Order: sequence, then structure tokens, then C-alpha cells
Amino acid sequence: MGPSIANMTDHAALPQAVDPLDFLATDSLLSETEVMLRDTVRQFVRNRILPEVGEWFDQGIFPKEMAKEFGSLGLLGMHLEGYGCAGTSATAYGLACTELEAGDSGARSFVSVQGSLAMFPIHAFGSEDQKQQWLPGMAAGELIGCFGLTEPDSGSDPSSMRTNARKDASGDWILNGAKMWITNGSIADVAVVWATTDPEGPDKGAVRGFLVPTDVAGFSAPLIHRKVSLRASVTSELILQDVRLPADAVLPEVSGMRGPFSCLNEARFGISFGSVGAARACYEAALDYSLNRVQFNQPIAGFQLTQKKLVDMMVKVQHAMLLAIHLGRMKDAGTLATPQISFGKMDNVRTALEVAREARSILGANGITTEYPVIRHMNNLESVYTYEGTNEIHTLILGNAITGIAAFS
Amino acid sequence: MGPSIANMTDHAALPQAVDPLDFLATDSLLSETEVMLRDTVRQFVRNRILPEVGEWFDQGIFPKEMAKEFGSLGLLGMHLEGYGCAGTSATAYGLACTELEAGDSGARSFVSVQGSLAMFPIHAFGSEDQKQQWLPGMAAGELIGCFGLTEPDSGSDPSSMRTNARKDASGDWILNGAKMWITNGSIADVAVVWATTDPEGPDKGAVRGFLVPTDVAGFSAPLIHRKVSLRASVTSELILQDVRLPADAVLPEVSGMRGPFSCLNEARFGISFGSVGAARACYEAALDYSLNRVQFNQPIAGFQLTQKKLVDMMVKVQHAMLLAIHLGRMKDAGTLATPQISFGKMDNVRTALEVAREARSILGANGITTEYPVIRHMNNLESVYTYEGTNEIHTLILGNAITGIAAFS
Amino acid sequence: MGPSIANMTDHAALPQAVDPLDFLATDSLLSETEVMLRDTVRQFVRNRILPEVGEWFDQGIFPKEMAKEFGSLGLLGMHLEGYGCAGTSATAYGLACTELEAGDSGARSFVSVQGSLAMFPIHAFGSEDQKQQWLPGMAAGELIGCFGLTEPDSGSDPSSMRTNARKDASGDWILNGAKMWITNGSIADVAVVWATTDPEGPDKGAVRGFLVPTDVAGFSAPLIHRKVSLRASVTSELILQDVRLPADAVLPEVSGMRGPFSCLNEARFGISFGSVGAARACYEAALDYSLNRVQFNQPIAGFQLTQKKLVDMMVKVQHAMLLAIHLGRMKDAGTLATPQISFGKMDNVRTALEVAREARSILGANGITTEYPVIRHMNNLESVYTYEGTNEIHTLILGNAITGIAAFS
Amino acid sequence: MGPSIANMTDHAALPQAVDPLDFLATDSLLSETEVMLRDTVRQFVRNRILPEVGEWFDQGIFPKEMAKEFGSLGLLGMHLEGYGCAGTSATAYGLACTELEAGDSGARSFVSVQGSLAMFPIHAFGSEDQKQQWLPGMAAGELIGCFGLTEPDSGSDPSSMRTNARKDASGDWILNGAKMWITNGSIADVAVVWATTDPEGPDKGAVRGFLVPTDVAGFSAPLIHRKVSLRASVTSELILQDVRLPADAVLPEVSGMRGPFSCLNEARFGISFGSVGAARACYEAALDYSLNRVQFNQPIAGFQLTQKKLVDMMVKVQHAMLLAIHLGRMKDAGTLATPQISFGKMDNVRTALEVAREARSILGANGITTEYPVIRHMNNLESVYTYEGTNEIHTLILGNAITGIAAFS
Repeated sequence: MGPSIANMTDHAALPQAVDPLDFLATDSLLSETEVMLRDTVRQFVRNRILPEVGEWFDQGIFPKEMAKEFGSLGLLGMHLEGYGCAGTSATAYGLACTELEAGDSGARSFVSVQGSLAMFPIHAFGSEDQKQQWLPGMAAGELIGCFGLTEPDSGSDPSSMRTNARKDASGDWILNGAKMWITNGSIADVAVVWATTDPEGPDKGAVRGFLVPTDVAGFSAPLIHRKVSLRASVTSELILQDVRLPADAVLPEVSGMRGPFSCLNEARFGISFGSVGAARACYEAALDYSLNRVQFNQPIAGFQLTQKKLVDMMVKVQHAMLLAIHLGRMKDAGTLATPQISFGKMDNVRTALEVAREARSILGANGITTEYPVIRHMNNLESVYTYEGTNEIHTLILGNAITGIAAFS
Repeated sequence: MGPSIANMTDHAALPQAVDPLDFLATDSLLSETEVMLRDTVRQFVRNRILPEVGEWFDQGIFPKEMAKEFGSLGLLGMHLEGYGCAGTSATAYGLACTELEAGDSGARSFVSVQGSLAMFPIHAFGSEDQKQQWLPGMAAGELIGCFGLTEPDSGSDPSSMRTNARKDASGDWILNGAKMWITNGSIADVAVVWATTDPEGPDKGAVRGFLVPTDVAGFSAPLIHRKVSLRASVTSELILQDVRLPADAVLPEVSGMRGPFSCLNEARFGISFGSVGAARACYEAALDYSLNRVQFNQPIAGFQLTQKKLVDMMVKVQHAMLLAIHLGRMKDAGTLATPQISFGKMDNVRTALEVAREARSILGANGITTEYPVIRHMNNLESVYTYEGTNEIHTLILGNAITGIAAFS
Repeated sequence: MGPSIANMTDHAALPQAVDPLDFLATDSLLSETEVMLRDTVRQFVRNRILPEVGEWFDQGIFPKEMAKEFGSLGLLGMHLEGYGCAGTSATAYGLACTELEAGDSGARSFVSVQGSLAMFPIHAFGSEDQKQQWLPGMAAGELIGCFGLTEPDSGSDPSSMRTNARKDASGDWILNGAKMWITNGSIADVAVVWATTDPEGPDKGAVRGFLVPTDVAGFSAPLIHRKVSLRASVTSELILQDVRLPADAVLPEVSGMRGPFSCLNEARFGISFGSVGAARACYEAALDYSLNRVQFNQPIAGFQLTQKKLVDMMVKVQHAMLLAIHLGRMKDAGTLATPQISFGKMDNVRTALEVAREARSILGANGITTEYPVIRHMNNLESVYTYEGTNEIHTLILGNAITGIAAFS
Repeated sequence: MGPSIANMTDHAALPQAVDPLDFLATDSLLSETEVMLRDTVRQFVRNRILPEVGEWFDQGIFPKEMAKEFGSLGLLGMHLEGYGCAGTSATAYGLACTELEAGDSGARSFVSVQGSLAMFPIHAFGSEDQKQQWLPGMAAGELIGCFGLTEPDSGSDPSSMRTNARKDASGDWILNGAKMWITNGSIADVAVVWATTDPEGPDKGAVRGFLVPTDVAGFSAPLIHRKVSLRASVTSELILQDVRLPADAVLPEVSGMRGPFSCLNEARFGISFGSVGAARACYEAALDYSLNRVQFNQPIAGFQLTQKKLVDMMVKVQHAMLLAIHLGRMKDAGTLATPQISFGKMDNVRTALEVAREARSILGANGITTEYPVIRHMNNLESVYTYEGTNEIHTLILGNAITGIAAFS
């Protein structure tokens, strides 16, 4: 640096220093309580997840015990009211997702599935009995839930699902079908399964949600193997062969695709925040590495090409955080609209994936192992990019919202 | 669109509608006063600039009369206190920049140069006499100022400037040198000229700022011709040949590069907001065009490829607006740091240029004329991308801030 | 550079030096004759176009006299056989396009329109009388042709054209309609106009081509003003109001959209080569500028950020040239398929636009005037990107070719 | 597709059909022999690698037996003359690399390391005895070689290596140091190790190459674990603790960094071709998947957004292939320069990585497992992107070649 540039930062009038890890001082947008809660989760991630998650990823496991630790911390169904749930703001829940996913997308996925996809529909659409039966144990992490919507041939177009529920003469429901890519499936105590009903029946073919205890006859949930992404997370098929459920196994308060889509909205909101965490972790790892890796007699952070990458990553992380907080505030104000959630899910995950890939390149050969967190995040984000609505589906949801023209098919 | 997707937006729980022109409802972040002020400027741009600016651009002119209209509206030195200035918040000033640049980057440049580059240093570093002499007339648009820092061979590295000021025996200053790419140069009444002093003199070679009345002997400001960008703006050289100024022509309260850099910070802040306006105007033009242009029997807004472009543009505009407002709030809180301003200038201008290019492509052949605003904005933004610190310089300022390593040279 | 890297290029075994302007030695793929021809055109561009084209662009003119100079050089209908045409290979014609567009896309457009869009259909689909009447004068540049396909509401979907031709009782054709964005329209002696015929008539509504002398009653060709792109080129509307033509004004040997599409193929082939020229000119201007522009005491070409831009541009230019030559060889071998031409048009123009934009940024403030060629090329390429099939249309043509699924609408 | 576009491809004059898997008919650039050889390797990959490589990747193994199969096929040291090597052209060797890497980058890496990094230096710089001792067995795959240049703290700047060789009184060499990221290290019979010599000794500190039998005392080669990339490949550390070698263990014919850099050139050439194979495999997998995956009642290949991705991938693969063949022809003509090899390595690997990522997104959830080849290739290419010169280093090599200014540090 020549002396001329030294002057460039010699202004009396303005503060010069910024926090490299919070460049735009987004912390100033949070309340003290939010910061405290965020820091608690961050500390938990540092103590309980980061030291082990590389191993979990390598071995392809997620320790079921973590559920209770999440529960103790109040992370499960965190923004729901009552039934043992913490009842925080949506923003606070989002910030917890950020910290969890700074650990691993698998950990955040666990919490999202438990809270937003399994507990939320019971809380929003369940009977009082259903709530009493399931929610307290789920909030404590003693019971695990999963969410069965996607099928092998029905992903972006979920209403093409084939899983069906028919009532037999006894009034029981009989479910048949298969669900795919189900987080927590093999360790779940209860599965929220969405199925189409008999077109001739009282529900006229509408999709309904069912609470399926996983020990019921005809239900199985084999693990999906050979994953390179979300390896520290349980992913399963759900197979339902003449699964018989009592009449009251259905979620009484919702009918139609509004049910699962409401859940997806909840989960997508959490992903908007969560993905920032993965991005931030990659940026921090790359910044740290580049300051310590010396080539040509200087830290590689001093090379313009590397510095530009670091800046690009930082800029993206900051944009993502600003966006997430904005969405959080709107959700808490009750003004957040569905397409705005799609904006957050689509854009923050895309951004996080870009950051992870850039970070990977900065780490050089060291970037290909799980000794460093980056390639793990990079692979995890491939799932996050795809699940809960692919980038394309959200693009078309946004396109629909701005043009008034649906272009899905 | 199949019926399945129709359902995708059939949630009872959440609002579904968004404003295509304010997708994330960023207006909700503004006060009523700010919205009112913003709308006033927007209306002014609609009435006085948009109907004519295409012609101005074609002919390569900027009508000097506009200065007084800007003055009447209170736009000149808008966020300064006293001396006939409006004394608004920084955020309000930023929002005005957004609206002006939604008209044309030339109009915003006029206001930036007058307020942030010419009036600001007089206000911040001038003597009471200097303030009284110049500021009220400049606030009213009756006097025009310009800012002479850049030189033909000294752009990104301004402290390599050759323009110099020496004191002669009489105590007068004698200025020699040339400045380049000076907005408003040929129509200015006063030029704020930065020059190096005699290394052997009392200022020990430090850069000082001088108020140069443009009718002084030895001063000339020829127009720069053949521009394709900022054609509705006056761009000039400043030539100083033995320009003699009285001893009190110097700005007394600043010495060194801190002077011009403080001004640049002010202007860059305004650009962070302004560029959002250019981007928004391009997005709106493209959205409007795509909804009305029919090919293959449907509005092109209905094609996935076009819809993705529209979404990308909208996303970028919204990010840019969120960022600008965040920076505005920090500036008003007195917490905004120099590198954060660089973030805003760098990123929002880059983004605006991307949006303009994308919009250009949507307009097809119609996009190549000034009948539509897009190609005008696209070309204007090339100047905005370059001036007040190139993308590279700001990248390295940010890089320095996060790594602690200066990599400018 | 440290001594270690010095060694990095100290190999005995391999040549080390490359030509920065032909990095991959693509010249080695050309025959001596081709190089000679190419150099002749290059010299002509240097002598006759480059010294003046900035002025032409500024003033928005293309001197009609250039037509004869192109004719003398053999550039008009260059790859056609007989009738005064040069009869070169397609590759040779392509190389000439590269050199012309290194001058200005307007010059190349003139030659493309004259040779590929006006002379080609007469040559391919005309009667012997038509050929004799028009081709020799057109080859010499004494007569100018234009091509009327696009209409105000019919661009990407040309078969939706409204211009129509009906036979009246006398056997004459009566043409009505309007064409838009017609290069050379206002200076043409003859317009090749495509029109739909009477659905009830002998042509059953098929599109036919007509040779319309521009001095015929009812024909006018007003200039299109306010262009920012292709300003050194004549662009016009064609207005046909009850234009009466003799029965033999129709091109006898073609019926249907095959006619205009054959012409487009010819022109698109030329654009594949031409756009490389514009890209190369921008790269060379940026390389030259960056080697001479000193900031922070060194040529900016020595900064990593600038060097990366230069490398990216060079890489793109070389890829584009390799591709163009490959397409040329296939065309000469008679194996070039329509989708391969779309590949060349789409990809090389996109690439050229990217190179031009990158080059613009390297030139800093100097890059915004026509004193340097870059911003002129950048704006020209916006037209080239759009005309002869937009990027989107070609994407979908390629998509159709690889998937077997047409997704145009 | 409307009928209008149907016409768009109804030209009599030109062929319409293209091969989706060889869009530009690059096969026409190959000789019959080359195609035959290429097809042989392709068949081998289909039969012996593709059925098992997903498993190898999952388990993190590369079966040593493959070495002999490669040898039988003539792939080891394929373009070297004599000593049991096949002596093919460089282009033929390149095409074999393409096919191998269409299987897995690990397989190609094995062949590159054996042939270009271990056999090549023995062939080029070894004594007749050394050649006789090692090359025939290595060509047959009975002996495995590895290449020790990179060290934990010495990657992009290899001449900063710390591994050293000193002569003791007996005339023996004593080697000490550690090498990192060494493909085949743990299964090698011989390691080509580069080490700095005594600055005071006869070699004056120059780097020399040593043939180290891996069963020598003081040598060990522990596996590197926890890789997510190149899992079907052996990657190791080499540890040399007072390894004693006879005086004739040194490669006699080369001194200085020219030795290892010559080898890198050979390997980088192979990577230029190899990476095209990985890209092609990903494109083909995505094309196939998109034609078979039905959502919204149609194959996703019919959606514009997916079709654009497919087109982008295809375009990149074709460019990469054109480039590789061009480089191959130059290498066979003896005209290929070092910076041109850097062009090929840098650009084709970058491109392949982009293609792999795009393909991953098309496969949706199915894209995250090794049931499909894409995520395996995507992760492998992260190593290929980094090794044999990172993208940054090659960018700066090219930048140096076009500007004459080294900007490595």
C-alpha cells in the first residue's frame, strides 16, 4: 500500500473500523434479547456440534441424542405458543436457524422438520387431543416427527402425489403409498403424512394430513444411502402398505394443499435464515484460512484475486442477513406474504451455495476434506437448494407474483 | 399453469399479494414524512425530467435552468444545516437521489456534485465568510459549483495529482494544473479545486482545497465531447494556468487527502441510493414492456426465460433498496463507517448496471433507442460505475477492511 | 514476481512465447490465401473505417459511398458464385466479417444485409432475369438492397407477420404492411420483402418474397431515429401502402418460411464470425490501454484484478474464433446444420457483449467516449444480440435440437 | 410449439439434425484410428469403471488391480516411446484421458500421475538404467509411481519447498522432508521426489529429482483421510526421514524447477482433455434425467428454464472439446507453448465444474447421491480445479503471457 491510499482512510469525520464478521453491523438491528438468544445457540453449536459434525458427516450419522439437547435448549417448535414450546418471535427462531446451520445444515434441518413441518401442522391444524398427545414430547425432543409430502415421482408438483387414504367400512383410514427424501424418517416417532382421499368420498379427493405413529403395522422407513449431502442427517423413504389408522388420525382443521403449503412456508422461512449461517461459516473459514496461508511470502488474503473473492463472499453474506432480518420483522408483524418467503428461500440459498463454492476454492487442497467445514456446507447446500421448493419453482412463484402470469407448465 | 400450482398459493394463513414494484414492502421501513418527500421528488421527476430527458440525452445537453428548479425543491445541499439548506436526514437525501436517478443519472449527478462535492466542503471546511458568500446561492440553484479532484493521469490514485498551488511573495496563491471529468465544470460559478502545496512551504506539500471563481483569469473549462454516457450532464476539463487567488481562497479547516475523501464519502452515499433508482426504472420499464409485448400469442412476460430475468432484476432492486435504507439509517445514527459507504457504492452500482443490461435485452430491438429509458440508464451507469471510486478500488477498500491488508498496489 | 515464478516459465522443452493477440495461434488453422484475404480487409478497415467511424457513430450516419468501396474489394455477395460475385469460401467470407466488425458492427451489418439477406435470396430463389437485373450492380455496390422480414409486432415470431400480398385482377401483386428495424432501408434501391399471400389464393397463404424497387409508388422508408446502437448504420421502417408490383416481382423458387429462414442462416453465419471481430477489437483496446495507463506507479495491466479481466476477455475471444473457424470449415464441407449456426450466432454474440462490457470497465472514464472504440462496440452489440434471432430464440432452437422438445411457447 | 416455429427448422438447404451428444460434430475432427482408440477406452470405462466407481467413491477406495488393466490397455505412459509404452500421439492420449475422466477423475488422475508425472520424468530426464529399471513395469501397471512436489506449506509456490537432499561423505543422498496431496502415494512402488540440494554443494541449491523406492528405510506414505473429493483415488502424504539413496538415484538430465514444471505441463495437457470427459458425463446424465423426469405432466427437459441449463452445459462441453483437440493438434505439431497448456487446464476445468454444478441442480434430490454420477464428478472436480496449478495461478500465467507483467506476488 502506497502512502496515498493510507490517506484514503484518514477521515476525521467518519468511523473507519468495521467488524469483518458483521460488516454492515446488522447486529445493531437486533434487540438485546435476540442477541443473547443468538449467542446462546452459537455457543451450543460451538460446543456440541462443531467438534463432532465433521465425523458425523464422514460416517453418515446424526446422533438421535441431539434431539433432547435441542429440546432442552428450547429450539423445537420454538416459535409456537403453549404445549411446552418456547413461544419466541419468528425473528428469534430465524436467528437460531442461522446459528444451527452455521454448524451444519443437517442440524438446522432437524430443527426445521421437527418444529415447522411436524409440530407446526399439529399445532395449527390438529385437535386438542392431538396437540396434547404429541407436542410436549416433541418440544422436549423426546418424540421425533417427520413430514411426508414428496414422493419419488412427485417433487416440484406435489399435488400429483399418489399416496392415498381411503376410509374402510369400520371408519378407519387405510393409507398406501411411498414418500421419499424424508428427513428424520427412520428415527421418527410420528410421521405427518399427506395423502389424497377418495374422489368419491366425503373429502372429494382433497389432500388431508395424517398423524402416523411409526410403529404402526405396514409402515416402514428405510434409510436412503449413498448421500454426499446432508450426511449428518437422517434421510429416509416412508413406505405405507395398508397402514390402518383410526378415524381421528386425520388433522381435522385443514383440507387441501393449503395444509402442506402452510408447513412449507414455515420451513422456508427458517431456511432463509438458516442458509445465512452456512454462508457465514464458509466465509469465516475462508477468511481465516486466507489470513494464515502463506504463499509467495505473504498471506494469500493479500492477493487481489483472493481479496476480491473474500469481498464477494462478505457482500453476499451481509445481503442475505439484511434480507433475513427484514423477513423476520415482517413475519412478526403479520405482514409477510407467501411470495416474500419464496424470495428469501430462493435467494439466500442460492447465495449461500455461491459463497460455499467460492470459499472452497480459497482453501485449495485443504478445502477437499472435512477437516475444514466448507466442502461439507457446500454439499449440504445442494440439498437445501433443492428441497422445500427448487430454485426454479421459487423463481416462477416470484414471476407469477410480479407478472400475474403463472408459467409453471 | 396446472391446477396443482394454483393451490400452491391458496393459503389462508398468509397474505398472498405483493406489490410488483416494491416486492419486499420496503416502503414500510420509511416514515410518513420520508414517503411524502420521496413522492414529491418522484412527481417532479415525472413531470419535469422524464418527458424531456431522452431529448437532452440525444442532444447531449443539460439545461442549466434545472438548477433553480432543483433549488426550489430544496434538493441542493439538502442534508446540510443552515445557509438556506433544507437540513433533512441523510436517509431523506438518499431517497431523493433514488428518485432523481430514476429519471437520469445526470440529474442525480448534478445534485450530488452541487450538494455533496461543492457545498459540503464549503460547509464542513470553509470559513464563515466562504459559507455566507456561496452556500445560500448554491442552495437556491443560483450559483453552481463543481469539484476538481481527478486529473487526466490521476484517477484511482488521486494523491498522485499534479495540480499545485504555491504562495507567491504577495501572499496570493498561484494555481496550475488540469482537472478532468468534472461534472458541471463548464456551467459552474465556483470550482472547489484540490491542489498540492509547496513541499517546502508551510503546508509541507499537503493537499489543500481552493474556491476558484470560474471567471478568474487563467481558468477555463472546456466541454468534453463524444460521450455516450451521462449525455444529459455537463462534463468538462478544468484548466488552470497561473490562476491567482487571494490568500483566503483556501478552505481553512482541512488539510490533506481527508478533505476530498470526506466529500467523496458524501457523494458515494448518495450514489448508493441513486443507483437504486436507475435500476428500478429499468426493471419497471422491462416489466411493463414484457407485459405488453406479445409474441407467440402471449405476453413475453409469460415465458419462463423472460420471467426469470424479471425476477432476477426485481430481486436485485430490492436488495439494493434494503441496503440503501440500512446505510441511511446508520448515517443518520452517526455510526456509518467509510468502508460501509464503499460497500453501498460498489455493490449498488454494480447491481444497477446488471439490471440495466438485463432490461435492455428484454426490450429487444426497441431497447436500442432512447424512446425507452433503458439504454440511456445502461450507458449512464457506466460512468457511475467508474466515478467516485471504481468497482476495483472499492473492492480493495472492502478487502482492506476485512483482511487488514491493503492490496491497492 | 519472485524468482520462484521466474523458474515457472523456464522449461527447455516447450515454446514459451505466445502472441497476445492470437493466443492459441488460430492463424495456423488458416490457409495462406485466407490469411492474405483477411489481412487485406483488415488493412481496409484500418485505413478507411477506423479513422472515421467514431465520427459516423457520433453523427449517426453511414456514408453511402462506402458501398462501392466494399464492392471494389469484393465483399458484397462475396461467397456467391457468378454475377460479379467473388465466389470465395464461406470461411473466407466469415473472416472478412470478422475484420469488418472489428471496425464497426454497422459496416459488417451493411455487408451482411447486402450479401446474405438481399443478394442471397435473389441468387438462391430468383429467376435468371432477376439475377441479371440486380446481382452485378449489387456486387459492385452500385445498387443497395435491404431485407424486410421483421415487423413492429412480429419479431421473434416472424410467421405472425401482417404484411400481405394479394393478386388483383390484372395479375399484379398489391402489397400492404410495414416492416421495422430494416438495415439499409432508407438507402436501398431494392427491398426483398416477405409477405403472406391470400389464404384463398394459389399460394394458400404461404409467405413469398418480393423484389420491391424502392422508387415504386406507395413505398417509403423513413429513418429510425434516437438509436444508441449501430449509429453508424442506416436503420429504417419500410412502409408499403398499396404497392403495386408486376407478377414477376415474386421470387419464384421459394415459398413459405423456408425463404427468409435460409437468408437468416446465411446472415447468422456471418455474425458468428463478425462478432469475434468486435470482441477482439475491445480486447485489444483494453490490453493496450491497460499497458499504458499508470496508477499507483505501475501500468494497471500489472494489477491482478485487471489482469484477470484481460485474461477472461482473451479466453473468450479465442474460444469464439475457434468456434467460428470450425463452423466455417463445416459450412464449406456442406455439413453445417441449422442448429449449429444458431450455436455460433448465440454464443459468439453473447461472448462478444461480455468482452465489450469488461473492456469498457478497464478503460475507466476514458471508456465512456467514442475516442476509444469500446463503448461504441458495446452498444452496437446490443443490436447484434437482438437481431437475427435473440439469445432466447437461439437457446430454444438449441434446446429443441438436443431434447427434441420445442419450448418456444 | 406453435406451427410457426416448426417452419423455422424447415429449410431445404441445410442439414437439420445434430447429435445431442456431439452437437458440433467434433468427431469429424478425429481420424479413424483416434475414434477407434477413443471408443475402446470408452467401452472399457463403461464395462470396468462405471459399474463400480460409485461404490469405490462411497467406500473411499481405488482398487490397485485397476493398474494392470490400465496397463494392458496401453494407457500408462501412452504417448511415450519405447520401454513398453504405446507411443501414441498426444491427441490420442488426450482422448483417452477424456474417456477415463468421463468415468471418474480418480481413474484419469491415476493414469496422469503414472504416465505424465512419474514415467515422463524418468523417460525425459532419467539414465538408461533408470528407464530400463522402471518404465516397462510401470507401462504394464505392475509397478506404480507417484510424484512428490507439493508440500503442506508449499503449493502454488512450489519452489519454496523445504524437502532437501544432501550428499553425505559416502556419496549417498540423504533426503528429508514431507510431501502432501500425493496421488497414489500409499500404493506406489517408486516416488519421484523433488528436493532442494545443498546451496553450498555442487548443485548450488538447485532442485533435483530423485527416484525413491517406497520400501526404503525412512520413507512412509500415510493415507489422507476425510476427503469428499477424489474418493476413488489414493491420496497420501510422503514422509522422508533421513532417507538414504545411492548417488545414482538422482535424475541426471535435469536440474532446477524445469524438471517438475515439465512434468506439470504433461499432466496439465491431460487434464485439459480429461475435464471434458467429466463435463460430458454430467451433461449426458442431466439430459437423460431431464428427458425422463416428468413433473407437471411433461418431461422437465421441456421447460424453458431447464432447457436453457441443458443448452448452457452443451455449449460449454463443445467449447471445451474444440479447445482440447486444438491443443492436441498443436502438441503433436510441436508448437504447443506452456501458456497455451495453462489456458487449457484453467479453462476446461473451470468449465467442467460449472457444468457439473448445473447438472447437479437438474437432478433435484436424486442429484445428491452417488446413484447418479453427477455429485461425484462435481466433488472430484474441486480437486482437479485446485491441483496442477489453481485457477488463480493459471490466470496469472496467462496474464503474464499477454501483458508481459508477472503479477504472482
